[in-house]
Amino acid sequence: MTLVALLELASVFVFALTGALAASRAQLDLVGFVFLASLTAVGGGTLRDLVLGQGAVFWVARPQMIGLAAIAAVIVFFTAHLLESRYRALLWLDACALAVAVPAGVGVALAQGQGWPVLLMMGVATGCFGGLMRDVVCNEVPLVLRAGELYVTAAFAGALAAVLALAAGLDQRAALIACAAVTLALRAGSLVFGWKLPAYRPRPPRR
Amino acid sequence: MTLVALLELASVFVFALTGALAASRAQLDLVGFVFLASLTAVGGGTLRDLVLGQGAVFWVARPQMIGLAAIAAVIVFFTAHLLESRYRALLWLDACALAVAVPAGVGVALAQGQGWPVLLMMGVATGCFGGLMRDVVCNEVPLVLRAGELYVTAAFAGALAAVLALAAGLDQRAALIACAAVTLALRAGSLVFGWKLPAYRPRPPRR
Amino acid sequence: MTLVALLELASVFVFALTGALAASRAQLDLVGFVFLASLTAVGGGTLRDLVLGQGAVFWVARPQMIGLAAIAAVIVFFTAHLLESRYRALLWLDACALAVAVPAGVGVALAQGQGWPVLLMMGVATGCFGGLMRDVVCNEVPLVLRAGELYVTAAFAGALAAVLALAAGLDQRAALIACAAVTLALRAGSLVFGWKLPAYRPRPPRR
Repeated sequence: MTLVALLELASVFVFALTGALAASRAQLDLVGFVFLASLTAVGGGTLRDLVLGQGAVFWVARPQMIGLAAIAAVIVFFTAHLLESRYRALLWLDACALAVAVPAGVGVALAQGQGWPVLLMMGVATGCFGGLMRDVVCNEVPLVLRAGELYVTAAFAGALAAVLALAAGLDQRAALIACAAVTLALRAGSLVFGWKLPAYRPRPPRR
Repeated sequence: MTLVALLELASVFVFALTGALAASRAQLDLVGFVFLASLTAVGGGTLRDLVLGQGAVFWVARPQMIGLAAIAAVIVFFTAHLLESRYRALLWLDACALAVAVPAGVGVALAQGQGWPVLLMMGVATGCFGGLMRDVVCNEVPLVLRAGELYVTAAFAGALAAVLALAAGLDQRAALIACAAVTLALRAGSLVFGWKLPAYRPRPPRR
Repeated sequence: MTLVALLELASVFVFALTGALAASRAQLDLVGFVFLASLTAVGGGTLRDLVLGQGAVFWVARPQMIGLAAIAAVIVFFTAHLLESRYRALLWLDACALAVAVPAGVGVALAQGQGWPVLLMMGVATGCFGGLMRDVVCNEVPLVLRAGELYVTAAFAGALAAVLALAAGLDQRAALIACAAVTLALRAGSLVFGWKLPAYRPRPPRR
């Protein structure tokens, strides 16, 4: 199994866990868990495959992906009550999912022979859109857009690390690992230490 | 006209009625009715055609579909005030639309020669995403995710009925009719009798 | 450069400005500005390219489009505090973006040799979906669906003007310019003078 395929599997499984946790917060039944887990798990990759024009998307070609998301949903359905804070678990699993989905997106675009701008865009889109769909469907303000946190920025920096590593002559494996590491480090640093970029703030009115 | 084409027509028309009812609740004008009716009517089938990689989606190949949705919108615009409860009408029409859209999705995937996992997924996606888009755009919690009701479950059970019927050697027509019947029975049973699956509920804190 | 390409560039840039203004209202950081600006800028055209089945969407083929959206985001990040009302600026820029995006959508469908129903639908979809996605992601009621304003109606009337102009024998350039003019006139008239179509209103209860 290639590294990209492994990253894709991990991304599907971990994003599915976050979707199922969101379902637990909405008190859905087991089928609702599977639905929301699947939507979150394959949302980003579906967008990536559609905009790249690859014909059928990856989970139509490999329906086991939905089976994997369903397994994650069942696990959460029966064990989520053991968690102290389901919201904290969701935040941290989402960070891990982001850190594998971004290199998966970069890897798929790379396999298509795309240039660096498309690598960047596919890394960010694959990483961010699964969680975005989950939050939009649950009618919440998306994590992606929460002020005062690194999220899109972490995804972008990770994709950029991969592009720079490739430009520096590293092989694909090293570039994708660097991508995952940078994404996770920035997102985790934001959750733990409150790292952030300066946000837009309107000037106070002049007196 | 094939049974699948008939189911698709019915699905477009009835989902359009629900979209127009949602537009009436938002007090839109006639063009807004047509827009929301069209979005709801073709949302699920559009997602299905895109992820299956079929080239242009069905309503680009057959723009009469949008004309049909527009007719539904006009009917609702001029007659909705006769309804006692527009919300109840929306719920029941949505149940009927689900019961024709799920077999339509299964039938299209079947015509492509897809295996049973894809039949299940296309049945559920075609059935659920039109209404999901309608509710997301109207900034409401989607019907799909309302706790304590069978919705995705009804769609899934219907698609499963079709798959089992085909596996048992029935012909396509019988399988699609079984699919519609099971979906409608479960969804209607949920609306009338409150049928539901056990939902996730966090354990009460231990003392 | 063709007129359609120019309209597309203008649409990307001006919609990106509105996305960045929405990001300023949500107090995001610079990367968040670029993300929301890009989503708004290419949302409508992405939907159009996907449903027309064109293979890779326009911004994968021409990633400069995302660069252009990023430039718009940076400009807004550093200058939005100079605006008296960011919401008014958003409304008016959105009107301008609509007026270039509708003819861009019609032009792309025309270049594909599509018939008039598809021209109408692509004009409306390209015009409306970028702003729709922006508002849905920000968890606001979409501008598209605000009661008592011409929005979808302006887009539809513009696309219809193009179709009628072509039917009357005018060349493509004139038709697209008529489309932009009609769209802008109706949308601006709605913002300034409160032009609107009669909205659905439930009858008062009978006594």
